Amino acid sequence: LDQTILEFTVGNDHVLDERLAPYDVAASQAHVRMLAKCGHLSTSDAEATCQALEALGKSHDEGAWHVSLEEEDIHTALENRLGDLGKRIHLGRSRNDQVLAALRLYMKDAIARIGEQVESLAEALDILAADQGSLPIPGYTHMQRAMPSSVGLWAEGFAAELRSHTLWAAMDLADRNPLGSAAGYGTPGLELDRAQTTQELGFSETQEPVTAPQLSRGKAEAALAFALTLILQDIGRLATDLCLFASQEFAFVRLPDEMTTGSSIMPQKRNPDVFELVRGHSAQAPARLLAILAVTAKMPSGYHRDLQLIKAPLFDLIDTAEAVLEVMTHAIPGLTFDPAKTQAAMSPDLFAAQRAYELVQSQGIPFREAYQKVASELADRSAASHG
Amino acid sequence: LDQTILEFTVGNDHVLDERLAPYDVAASQAHVRMLAKCGHLSTSDAEATCQALEALGKSHDEGAWHVSLEEEDIHTALENRLGDLGKRIHLGRSRNDQVLAALRLYMKDAIARIGEQVESLAEALDILAADQGSLPIPGYTHMQRAMPSSVGLWAEGFAAELRSHTLWAAMDLADRNPLGSAAGYGTPGLELDRAQTTQELGFSETQEPVTAPQLSRGKAEAALAFALTLILQDIGRLATDLCLFASQEFAFVRLPDEMTTGSSIMPQKRNPDVFELVRGHSAQAPARLLAILAVTAKMPSGYHRDLQLIKAPLFDLIDTAEAVLEVMTHAIPGLTFDPAKTQAAMSPDLFAAQRAYELVQSQGIPFREAYQKVASELADRSAASHG
Amino acid sequence: LDQTILEFTVGNDHVLDERLAPYDVAASQAHVRMLAKCGHLSTSDAEATCQALEALGKSHDEGAWHVSLEEEDIHTALENRLGDLGKRIHLGRSRNDQVLAALRLYMKDAIARIGEQVESLAEALDILAADQGSLPIPGYTHMQRAMPSSVGLWAEGFAAELRSHTLWAAMDLADRNPLGSAAGYGTPGLELDRAQTTQELGFSETQEPVTAPQLSRGKAEAALAFALTLILQDIGRLATDLCLFASQEFAFVRLPDEMTTGSSIMPQKRNPDVFELVRGHSAQAPARLLAILAVTAKMPSGYHRDLQLIKAPLFDLIDTAEAVLEVMTHAIPGLTFDPAKTQAAMSPDLFAAQRAYELVQSQGIPFREAYQKVASELADRSAASHG
Amino acid sequence: LDQTILEFTVGNDHVLDERLAPYDVAASQAHVRMLAKCGHLSTSDAEATCQALEALGKSHDEGAWHVSLEEEDIHTALENRLGDLGKRIHLGRSRNDQVLAALRLYMKDAIARIGEQVESLAEALDILAADQGSLPIPGYTHMQRAMPSSVGLWAEGFAAELRSHTLWAAMDLADRNPLGSAAGYGTPGLELDRAQTTQELGFSETQEPVTAPQLSRGKAEAALAFALTLILQDIGRLATDLCLFASQEFAFVRLPDEMTTGSSIMPQKRNPDVFELVRGHSAQAPARLLAILAVTAKMPSGYHRDLQLIKAPLFDLIDTAEAVLEVMTHAIPGLTFDPAKTQAAMSPDLFAAQRAYELVQSQGIPFREAYQKVASELADRSAASHG
Repeated sequence: LDQTILEFTVGNDHVLDERLAPYDVAASQAHVRMLAKCGHLSTSDAEATCQALEALGKSHDEGAWHVSLEEEDIHTALENRLGDLGKRIHLGRSRNDQVLAALRLYMKDAIARIGEQVESLAEALDILAADQGSLPIPGYTHMQRAMPSSVGLWAEGFAAELRSHTLWAAMDLADRNPLGSAAGYGTPGLELDRAQTTQELGFSETQEPVTAPQLSRGKAEAALAFALTLILQDIGRLATDLCLFASQEFAFVRLPDEMTTGSSIMPQKRNPDVFELVRGHSAQAPARLLAILAVTAKMPSGYHRDLQLIKAPLFDLIDTAEAVLEVMTHAIPGLTFDPAKTQAAMSPDLFAAQRAYELVQSQGIPFREAYQKVASELADRSAASHG
Repeated sequence: LDQTILEFTVGNDHVLDERLAPYDVAASQAHVRMLAKCGHLSTSDAEATCQALEALGKSHDEGAWHVSLEEEDIHTALENRLGDLGKRIHLGRSRNDQVLAALRLYMKDAIARIGEQVESLAEALDILAADQGSLPIPGYTHMQRAMPSSVGLWAEGFAAELRSHTLWAAMDLADRNPLGSAAGYGTPGLELDRAQTTQELGFSETQEPVTAPQLSRGKAEAALAFALTLILQDIGRLATDLCLFASQEFAFVRLPDEMTTGSSIMPQKRNPDVFELVRGHSAQAPARLLAILAVTAKMPSGYHRDLQLIKAPLFDLIDTAEAVLEVMTHAIPGLTFDPAKTQAAMSPDLFAAQRAYELVQSQGIPFREAYQKVASELADRSAASHG
Repeated sequence: LDQTILEFTVGNDHVLDERLAPYDVAASQAHVRMLAKCGHLSTSDAEATCQALEALGKSHDEGAWHVSLEEEDIHTALENRLGDLGKRIHLGRSRNDQVLAALRLYMKDAIARIGEQVESLAEALDILAADQGSLPIPGYTHMQRAMPSSVGLWAEGFAAELRSHTLWAAMDLADRNPLGSAAGYGTPGLELDRAQTTQELGFSETQEPVTAPQLSRGKAEAALAFALTLILQDIGRLATDLCLFASQEFAFVRLPDEMTTGSSIMPQKRNPDVFELVRGHSAQAPARLLAILAVTAKMPSGYHRDLQLIKAPLFDLIDTAEAVLEVMTHAIPGLTFDPAKTQAAMSPDLFAAQRAYELVQSQGIPFREAYQKVASELADRSAASHG
Repeated sequence: LDQTILEFTVGNDHVLDERLAPYDVAASQAHVRMLAKCGHLSTSDAEATCQALEALGKSHDEGAWHVSLEEEDIHTALENRLGDLGKRIHLGRSRNDQVLAALRLYMKDAIARIGEQVESLAEALDILAADQGSLPIPGYTHMQRAMPSSVGLWAEGFAAELRSHTLWAAMDLADRNPLGSAAGYGTPGLELDRAQTTQELGFSETQEPVTAPQLSRGKAEAALAFALTLILQDIGRLATDLCLFASQEFAFVRLPDEMTTGSSIMPQKRNPDVFELVRGHSAQAPARLLAILAVTAKMPSGYHRDLQLIKAPLFDLIDTAEAVLEVMTHAIPGLTFDPAKTQAAMSPDLFAAQRAYELVQSQGIPFREAYQKVASELADRSAASHG
């Protein structure tokens, strides 16, 4: 292959593929055992191949080797390193189902891991609510003081929303075994036992018919990106609140100095950069979702090389989500709400709706009438204070 | 309110709101009955209000009235038309939870309806597979003929993917009762029975704490838009295939004349416009998802008027998805695959992998060796035919 | 054509097309005159057709007729209404170049009009700066008080950015005459004078070669959408500032009551809904740009019916931009900055950099050293005030 | 700074910044000379600093040092390496204007370079048109054979569209000097000569007022991303055509073997991966544009740390565009159109419009009548051939 073409087509795929090594090892082992079970490979060859794969996975994990540009991807890198054994294991398997199997096993792990991180962040918010939750703060609508709220209601709203994630919808789409669909049209003339790899790899089902796996490319990926987008958007809104609360005008919350940065020319500054970057990352998440969806849009059925480009935005978004979740879980315990400043913000206006409810209940008047009365009282009071 | 400001802030919201009428009627009735049960409203007032709402819903459904620009939204339109009764029912309820309740009830209906439409389209593909499925067609990868496939494998791949939708993830997020959260901070000083409206309206749960509903604005909407995006993308790829298959070069499929359009200057043309527009609509779906996500991105917690802008892209996408599903379910039965043309495309090369599998099984050689042998055979044959 | 297919393929195109009537009239007149000049049409027929078109344009403008669903688009609506004259004018013209010509003439007008609106808004900011510009306000970085600024610097920054728009880049792409490219491959066998319609319609150039116009579909549209996106983003950031400045915590600015809205349950509220909606609309602009780009992405060359779907997001965005520009130009003069509140926010810390500059100039020490000194002074003062 | 926070806030910024080294060197030298000219720095210090910067730029270019995570960015890396000299040069400059100056100088270079690459690709298409342009191919609309076209018209349409790029609109926004705006509010108490750095760095103008530069963050970047999106979309459509033309069904074009890839299981395959990846990259460009726009959306005025996140999608898109332009300019000369296959596709129907034009001209009948006649002739012929 022409060198310019090679470099362009591989891009940084060989680097991205590093994280798929353990999953391709596992999927290849399952495939090899299935081949042996079906009589397409001798038991001794299968055993030897599985052991060789195990060793390669281990040495890769220890950093002993990397995928080179010429190898193009982790799959070729492993196959080449298997030597003669490698020549037999591509029977009944195409790059198309192999790549997808490794990617789905990776996604399943990532989803489970991120699910735990989300729960950890929610727990950090629970603890904040338990510790400082009784402090009153205004509840805002339209960024205007509206109703009495509290640090607890504020933190627990976010905790509840974080826990309402849709990661499991992504899991559902990822949890289907593509192995045995080969290039996307099965293996005519070669009988395989797809249920065997499904079971061994812990997939919930075998994806049928054989044309479905390549049509489904990008869908579990997009569903995961979408779930992460919603999670990041919740966290981004939390960060926006914190940037606001950390301003001198609100001054509800303080961050420890070691969590803020200074300025290159204004020595007095303590900036909440961490929350700004969280906000920025959350805002970019939809762009990554879009980068995934754009690849498969309008694509004729069957495999196309464009699909390779799904990995970069997916991995970026997974890494970003993990970093954001980690740093927020780390930062939340550092927040200290200021009782004096929050109390000072509890202006009497915040209790206007409550006052109207009281009038309704004590005087039996309709709410709209009570609302008008309270509005008049407030107008009078305001006139008096400016009079 | 200043007229320029009024017209700008209302926009076409009063028109969009028309479809929410039955849902606001139902949610208001549930709210009213709950108020009565809690002793905040007399039983007779509650009864009268529920009947009046029922009548208003009916007359709206019959086209007897519409929401005017001055009323701004369906909620004010209904409340105003209730006269004195309307003055009592805003007790313990804010526009914020009221709007969200109606929207979620609407979404639940839309999700159920679209779920059925998706199944109908999948069934149309099943029937196509049953009727013409045994016709062989090439399976393509990289748009190159790759493996033997069939009309059945082609149609059933799409049917399976359509049935793997994520509408239920959207349902899960939509199926939570926001009523009683009021402006987003509950109703201090007024005890409500939120479980009562949850049960009466058929929501699966009461959304807690009271700060969660406004934080969750846009999330069920985005999840529905995402589910529709994946569904439309499957259908868009089906349409791309059909545009290709309908070209003179492929000529696999014919559409009845009444489903194609002519040209303004080229009398010989029969164009598959319907599939092109399906493809175009599918490509635009992510933009609508993005329009929803953009509203809530970086938003401080609490209600903001920006949230009004979620409705337009959501309703557009729902309407588009329903129209696309309907027209495709209508068009699929009109497809006729051409046995002569499809058979002519079944070039011998398509069976190369199968030939390699045979060599592996008959000669016990590794797959890579068999692959080389078949490659040589093909090269020889090709040289001979050009020789 | 099958009714279901017709309704789907037309969609709301006949409604969208209403605004193109005057442009299709003008382009058709130019085409007719060119045909006459080339000898393909008698002068009397040309004259009669031009007059009939003029009359149709006038009656449409007066609301005397509308495009019906069955007519599908403005072009057929006009052609049909021309009767026998209409049968001759499609010579040397296809729907493909005709649609594009009308759309480009419309865009050119819209660009010029919006350019003026942008200037009007910038002027409103100039006036604000002239009237209240000397009031000091803090300049913020990271939403932290950073440096001394003023209402004037704040307003003039936005005015300058608004004036740095890229509308003219969109104009450049729109200002090319597609007429004569017909379906996208010219008019073999029929000689036309493309320069004639270019000149008569005021296009800067004739778009060459004939394959270019259909390849360029969506590009001027996208460039206009992009220019509007940047303009709206500037205005959206202005709106964000104003929502912040209107909060009780900042309280820098007041809006007249008739420009704010109240709350359905909190009688004390005055909400800046207009700025929230401006912010929301600005956030959705990229989605419309994306909806345009999505149509032409990956499209094979030549005309495809998908292109029809470019109009809706383009017109939506143009209308939104015009509405936002109008309402902001209307609202800005209503802003009153509060001298007491803004002055109170001018904390001494804001002058720290200035103090460091003085030390550098008076003592000749390096800036980093001066910076450290001021930092120490501030720390001492802070310790003293809390001591 | 807390290590977790540091690692999160820096991210991979220190790696991204490597490419900005020469531009920060140049901008710092200009700033230093300006300080000297204004009397804020001794001539000897200025001279020494400029020489030290030059040496640092050279050693960085040779790979002698890299920006470390702890240094965070290229600016600190350079300042630290200047030792005592570095302590004086931050006078009258903030990270905010410094970062922006380097980024804009980088963008100006990138724009100029890409402009040349675009011209090179257009020239490759010119050469293709000159060499093989006279070969007839069908012109398609709706992917249906429509009109006679040629390889020349096909290639020259793309060349013309490539040359109609909007890179210069991005140049216009980038070509403004932010230096002297400091943190975004100028340098009160310190007089600078902004015109001096504008001239020395070759900017077209000094950006005024001082609040404008930070408000304009992301705009030149977005304009460049938009220009690249349109360029990539043109190229993506060219790639789509080529994937179609390379199919066995069209078979219009052949690629040399060294530019295509084989299959892991189908030995007969020659896949045009390079064009598929070009198509995929073109489809992802809008996502990168969106990632840039998302950062500044709704942002309050002034600098915020989120802005750091603009660099990654911008650099990615620039690199992608350069790689795509390079590989396409390399691949186009390898294309060979097949005279037999293209000729075979020139079906008689393609000349129907031309035949109608002849009827109009020879018989003086209206076009619509001629159109009907030709349609009837075609129907008769078709009936005869099937009869």
